[in-house]
Amino acid sequence: MTTRIIGNTFHCDRLVRFSHCDPAGIVFYPQYFIMFNGLIEDWFKLGLGVDYANYITEHRLGFPIVSLDCQFESPSKIGETITFALRLDHLGRSSMKLVVECTHKGQLRLRANKVLVAMDLDKGRAVPLPDDLRTLLEGFQQGRLDINAYEDADS
Amino acid sequence: MTTRIIGNTFHCDRLVRFSHCDPAGIVFYPQYFIMFNGLIEDWFKLGLGVDYANYITEHRLGFPIVSLDCQFESPSKIGETITFALRLDHLGRSSMKLVVECTHKGQLRLRANKVLVAMDLDKGRAVPLPDDLRTLLEGFQQGRLDINAYEDADS
Amino acid sequence: MTTRIIGNTFHCDRLVRFSHCDPAGIVFYPQYFIMFNGLIEDWFKLGLGVDYANYITEHRLGFPIVSLDCQFESPSKIGETITFALRLDHLGRSSMKLVVECTHKGQLRLRANKVLVAMDLDKGRAVPLPDDLRTLLEGFQQGRLDINAYEDADS
Amino acid sequence: MTTRIIGNTFHCDRLVRFSHCDPAGIVFYPQYFIMFNGLIEDWFKLGLGVDYANYITEHRLGFPIVSLDCQFESPSKIGETITFALRLDHLGRSSMKLVVECTHKGQLRLRANKVLVAMDLDKGRAVPLPDDLRTLLEGFQQGRLDINAYEDADS
Repeated sequence: MTTRIIGNTFHCDRLVRFSHCDPAGIVFYPQYFIMFNGLIEDWFKLGLGVDYANYITEHRLGFPIVSLDCQFESPSKIGETITFALRLDHLGRSSMKLVVECTHKGQLRLRANKVLVAMDLDKGRAVPLPDDLRTLLEGFQQGRLDINAYEDADS
Repeated sequence: MTTRIIGNTFHCDRLVRFSHCDPAGIVFYPQYFIMFNGLIEDWFKLGLGVDYANYITEHRLGFPIVSLDCQFESPSKIGETITFALRLDHLGRSSMKLVVECTHKGQLRLRANKVLVAMDLDKGRAVPLPDDLRTLLEGFQQGRLDINAYEDADS
Repeated sequence: MTTRIIGNTFHCDRLVRFSHCDPAGIVFYPQYFIMFNGLIEDWFKLGLGVDYANYITEHRLGFPIVSLDCQFESPSKIGETITFALRLDHLGRSSMKLVVECTHKGQLRLRANKVLVAMDLDKGRAVPLPDDLRTLLEGFQQGRLDINAYEDADS
Repeated sequence: MTTRIIGNTFHCDRLVRFSHCDPAGIVFYPQYFIMFNGLIEDWFKLGLGVDYANYITEHRLGFPIVSLDCQFESPSKIGETITFALRLDHLGRSSMKLVVECTHKGQLRLRANKVLVAMDLDKGRAVPLPDDLRTLLEGFQQGRLDINAYEDADS
């Protein structure tokens, strides 16, 4: 199983692919952020049970990033399976602060904090998080969505 | 289950992610070729039971593309799960010709033929396919690797 | 100068960047197609004098690909400056067939044929090429836009 | 001219391309970091007069990122020309701290701090910055490389 929730944390395993790697044979760091985006889609779908794409296509609601900080501890190599662990650190009126740790066999690869904000894609401005989503996010944050069987993530 | 072999064809389902899509909200076509690369890695790992990354890192053997043609029939949208079907059309001394069809609910999205060649990454020249890999490829081509349970692909 | 028209051909030089290259230290082939897209934007802007982005944002007109074939002759390495040469091979009612050659110091790296079609992005269907664009395309095809000084392309 | 040094700051203009943008029609944020990587290559080549690629291919010396923080102030749209301004904030024994601001017509789009470290790509460990590079970096930091004419960056 490649995704799972343990307590208040969503876990997702990812294979480091050829296409993620640079001439040094390690993950080209912007690829981590593309993987983060996939991680959030999987967390919505498999962790919260809502469809990330629907927010964009039907509700014209997006979740752009407003703040990111990231410490890169050690490189990831092609062929490794790395694990992303996502926690909801803070829930604001229209924003959410996420903490993501990436590890390989217990070794920390990178640690990131990111703040996302709910944005009306047509008006281009921040809006409150929808109530139904907020309820799910609170449940996740409090570890009340402790589900252990999922269909698997793909890309 | 996101990957499976049926007869002589390897199938893999993929979610169309936000990061695959362009301002028109459809897959930006170079992203299909990045997905193709992942498809081949999954085919090697889950279809043939060999590690694609090992060939590169340990044997310094790569499989660059020498020829590609592709017909794009209809666009794929964010949030759709599309299915790639990969068949080995021809096996040469150092080359393999693959046919890939991408569909969504039976609708053809694109069809591609690609020729890959085994290349010594240090010498930068074509080399014969390793015998062990050739044996597996022949078995796949003849539908003798009809396995139906796999761990799942990720990205 | 990184872009120029010679007769009926638009030329653009591109540096092979770290971000284009794979663990083998050569261009990861989908990156060529991303560069092709940039080439077409530069051709529109610097070769035809029209704004590619405007078609999408203001007229909701896009130019998706319907057919691609590509022969990869030899790899391109990080740090090389490669030259793309774009020719308009055929002009249809709503389609254009382009031939692109990529060379380095006269050595052919790849050759591609691609067919693009003008598409109404809202209706999602092919439409005739706008008359003003068609006039420019015919002028380019006939080598009547033989301009030799441009502002330079960037990315 | 798309690149220039003013005092102790390297400036580079970049067109926001179709391939940089997401279904919301704005730059997909990991694309900024890919652009940053290009910015550093251009800074090395056009600002410092050294070849970034040579360090990797000939000296097996890379400059991986160890720390990144980024504030996203407002989105960038397809077709806009945005300006990156790069300053060398601190020079360590093997590390350099860079500050990058991205603006459009004076409006701040994002601001990033990144720390890069010189790494022996074969041994996979940090090494002191080469003396010749250090001399150039100090000259740049002190605004002594105030050159105003360059060949232009491309991608």
